[in-house]
Amino acid sequence: MKFEVKANLQYQVKNNSSIILNISALNTPHQKVISETLEVTKGVHQKEFLSSPEGNRLTSLEILNDQNLNINYSAQVNQYCEIKGYDRIKDLNIAKLPANVLTYLNPSRYCQSDKLYRLANNMFGYKKDDFDKVSALTHWIYLNVAYLSGSTDAETSAYDTVTEQAGVCRDFAHLGIALCRALTIPARYFTGYAYQLSPPDFHACFEAYIDGDWVLFDATRLIPLNGMVKIATGRDAADAAVASLFGDINFISSKISCELIDQKFEPFNQDDQSRRGVIYL
Amino acid sequence: MKFEVKANLQYQVKNNSSIILNISALNTPHQKVISETLEVTKGVHQKEFLSSPEGNRLTSLEILNDQNLNINYSAQVNQYCEIKGYDRIKDLNIAKLPANVLTYLNPSRYCQSDKLYRLANNMFGYKKDDFDKVSALTHWIYLNVAYLSGSTDAETSAYDTVTEQAGVCRDFAHLGIALCRALTIPARYFTGYAYQLSPPDFHACFEAYIDGDWVLFDATRLIPLNGMVKIATGRDAADAAVASLFGDINFISSKISCELIDQKFEPFNQDDQSRRGVIYL
Amino acid sequence: MKFEVKANLQYQVKNNSSIILNISALNTPHQKVISETLEVTKGVHQKEFLSSPEGNRLTSLEILNDQNLNINYSAQVNQYCEIKGYDRIKDLNIAKLPANVLTYLNPSRYCQSDKLYRLANNMFGYKKDDFDKVSALTHWIYLNVAYLSGSTDAETSAYDTVTEQAGVCRDFAHLGIALCRALTIPARYFTGYAYQLSPPDFHACFEAYIDGDWVLFDATRLIPLNGMVKIATGRDAADAAVASLFGDINFISSKISCELIDQKFEPFNQDDQSRRGVIYL
Amino acid sequence: MKFEVKANLQYQVKNNSSIILNISALNTPHQKVISETLEVTKGVHQKEFLSSPEGNRLTSLEILNDQNLNINYSAQVNQYCEIKGYDRIKDLNIAKLPANVLTYLNPSRYCQSDKLYRLANNMFGYKKDDFDKVSALTHWIYLNVAYLSGSTDAETSAYDTVTEQAGVCRDFAHLGIALCRALTIPARYFTGYAYQLSPPDFHACFEAYIDGDWVLFDATRLIPLNGMVKIATGRDAADAAVASLFGDINFISSKISCELIDQKFEPFNQDDQSRRGVIYL
Repeated sequence: MKFEVKANLQYQVKNNSSIILNISALNTPHQKVISETLEVTKGVHQKEFLSSPEGNRLTSLEILNDQNLNINYSAQVNQYCEIKGYDRIKDLNIAKLPANVLTYLNPSRYCQSDKLYRLANNMFGYKKDDFDKVSALTHWIYLNVAYLSGSTDAETSAYDTVTEQAGVCRDFAHLGIALCRALTIPARYFTGYAYQLSPPDFHACFEAYIDGDWVLFDATRLIPLNGMVKIATGRDAADAAVASLFGDINFISSKISCELIDQKFEPFNQDDQSRRGVIYL
Repeated sequence: MKFEVKANLQYQVKNNSSIILNISALNTPHQKVISETLEVTKGVHQKEFLSSPEGNRLTSLEILNDQNLNINYSAQVNQYCEIKGYDRIKDLNIAKLPANVLTYLNPSRYCQSDKLYRLANNMFGYKKDDFDKVSALTHWIYLNVAYLSGSTDAETSAYDTVTEQAGVCRDFAHLGIALCRALTIPARYFTGYAYQLSPPDFHACFEAYIDGDWVLFDATRLIPLNGMVKIATGRDAADAAVASLFGDINFISSKISCELIDQKFEPFNQDDQSRRGVIYL
Repeated sequence: MKFEVKANLQYQVKNNSSIILNISALNTPHQKVISETLEVTKGVHQKEFLSSPEGNRLTSLEILNDQNLNINYSAQVNQYCEIKGYDRIKDLNIAKLPANVLTYLNPSRYCQSDKLYRLANNMFGYKKDDFDKVSALTHWIYLNVAYLSGSTDAETSAYDTVTEQAGVCRDFAHLGIALCRALTIPARYFTGYAYQLSPPDFHACFEAYIDGDWVLFDATRLIPLNGMVKIATGRDAADAAVASLFGDINFISSKISCELIDQKFEPFNQDDQSRRGVIYL
Repeated sequence: MKFEVKANLQYQVKNNSSIILNISALNTPHQKVISETLEVTKGVHQKEFLSSPEGNRLTSLEILNDQNLNINYSAQVNQYCEIKGYDRIKDLNIAKLPANVLTYLNPSRYCQSDKLYRLANNMFGYKKDDFDKVSALTHWIYLNVAYLSGSTDAETSAYDTVTEQAGVCRDFAHLGIALCRALTIPARYFTGYAYQLSPPDFHACFEAYIDGDWVLFDATRLIPLNGMVKIATGRDAADAAVASLFGDINFISSKISCELIDQKFEPFNQDDQSRRGVIYL
């Protein structure tokens, strides 16, 4: 599918501040960036496409004067995510995992999986394999956690959400990741532009490592799983923040869009029966 | 300096378990592993020196039968850490940091720096530069946090320690890291074999990124700063655990040692006046 | 039923310390203390049977010299708890509750019910009345929380236990109370001597306010519900600690017993079908 | 001094809800209610002046129909608080404390003093007596905690505020109480109407038990200490909430006032040198 994505971000910034942006679409064999522009208010020093350890494309901005900073990103992207069946899957062999997958078994700032072992195993441990476990926990989050704008903040973590049971996409993703890791299933945070998300915004969901693939899950059920343009992955929102702010910076506004350029789009909504999943490579 | 380090670890393990070990000395131009052996009970499948994203040397063990697992690591290492003065240091320019340093500004599982901004800035923000800030916070931890074996567990984090004010080396390191990051100073967890540590054990301290160097700090003051053989770095103990256990595994015992082979050793204990620090490359 | 209860407590105490004991059996029309003695090492100043706001019988000890403090309490008690059916119960009318019941709807140190509203209502809100709700949550705790000595400490609260799912009687009681209050059912902490508890110790469970009665529930299922000699009630363990220590005091040992003096005892174990409960007046 | 206090509260309420109000001025020998009225929208069943275990004057409202509920309280009150010197004070003798004071040494929902022992003693333990300790901790809160509307919510506790260092009057009071109790000084929450508070609102501060008196402290420094009309005391905001809501109830607005009727008023602002305090009996 071909998408056009746009992000406009505005901040009020005092001098000597920095922003690390993480809003550029990934550019991989399976997600080709056809064209893109990143425009920033004049006079801001900009270093583009620093590659993070996770392979994300960061841009660092150095702002030397007080100003209203205006950031405009737009890109056209060909996205070839894959829909795949997980009918018969091999057991995870931890001793054979690559080290860059192992890291996604560790607890992280917003995904304290070490505190959820008993809970996760009591609830989902009986399921027959990892696909069923992740499907079941994603469904449980969907049923039990209320999607409530403003109910959480930048400090809210999976440990909070598992009891408070309210949050936004970021919190849904963190809880999904924490439960996966507590079940010894590697899982990571995923951000992107999302087609048909209403109201339009950046979106967060999560990937679980199943049968050698990073399979996408979204406990919010707000979007078709195959309608995303991938920006970043990381352990959690600490790694994959859209913008990391250093200095005296106030958020003013943002406007995000993700439009389909192709004629046709066949939405793939997760279906607990089908055992099929979507992979973004 | 030339050191001989040894670790003996014993576990009671049920079949189909895995262990990811992180006890091998790093091998770099400034820390040369002269010789090393890793012996594990026969029949355990062993994959050596998987390199983690942080450059640590992991060993994965796959244990297929019930057994008492016996692990023996020993190495001779030439360690050339550097003692350097930080009298005049350049300000940190975030926009110019490499992406693999930026990551150490993020909060992590055990170092929730995002919750400590006001506290850290109220306490240490007035200090004149980053070296003074890190010295001051390390000194404050030394004075206020009681070193108490058994007072904390694997879930204890900097957010706990900053108020409960008791812990072990791991907790001292986590609190140091969290306070640094809250002051916008990149900081990471550091594990190693420690000369003159009593009782002998693995040791944890932390590195702060000052003037382009990763400078070692140890708020426990239990060892000379230049007497370590480096094993690993990471965001916190979640990244750099000595052993990550998967399956039905019980710890039996450990025995660690770090002996000096050279004739002479001149201990460098941190001295708040001198503005000198130790770098492990 | 007639019981004989005994408690021996030993502490190592430095001078100028105080202990507030809460180990005396309540003396009410429905629990008659036939005889009792409280013996404390000579020279300790002792003020007996201070009545707490909750009606508990406290003893304050003032220790002026360093010593091994030895405390011996024993009592014979006639206990007339009532077993009652709750087949048809009236709805709780909050506006008509006495103020000393209202207080048990509030969150407390170890029972942060304000954080569990959604969770409690998602899990148990659909049950038809308050008796069913409390039965169901007590049963859920029994099934999901592992009884593990040493897994928790004096700071552990219901907010921890609901996710960590391990603890001792105190933690089981706190979680029961927090879930009740989150469902707008008044609930309070209950301590006592427990017949047939193995190993013998003080025991904690909880009372829920149902149809105008304080009905006893015990999610540990370790004892018959009608085999207790009541010591105290309170919001949680903060109100009803067996001993509150002020000064330099170390616990040495305790020995508790609760023997039946009567010939016969018909144990009443909670049975989710019967809708019967036990009341201690 | 003679004050006129007024509170107007408006809620949108669905049928079958209840509200427990705690907005009536206390009526004691030292705070005489000269006249008062409480008017509530017609048809609401109202039970006035239920006395809480702490002696507060509660009003329960039972709302049977959907409505916009309008509550108007007004009172004229003669307030005779006492300003007293604490130059030479006797040490606290815990063993001689009445049981209804002992309870204010316990940790509570929002004042987890059990987690702050080392911190409180490291920071304030060296001060010469209880008055100096409470003065010092109140001053520390004033200097370090930012008064920021909207920075906290109904779940925020002293354990959060001691590190996050931002909050409103309720959070300042909770932190003061927790630090006092951690220093073995009984302390309780205090709510009232406050003269010269800007913007006008209910106010919360705390009382510490010093030399047999409950002495008022206010770490916000927003008001003169002798300008309050006392509503309630309790362990923390869980005991002394202005309004406890049960059912489907949304807050619409509130308007509070506290006017001086007397000609003259000599403000008493706490002064760390004078060792004088204000007592509300």
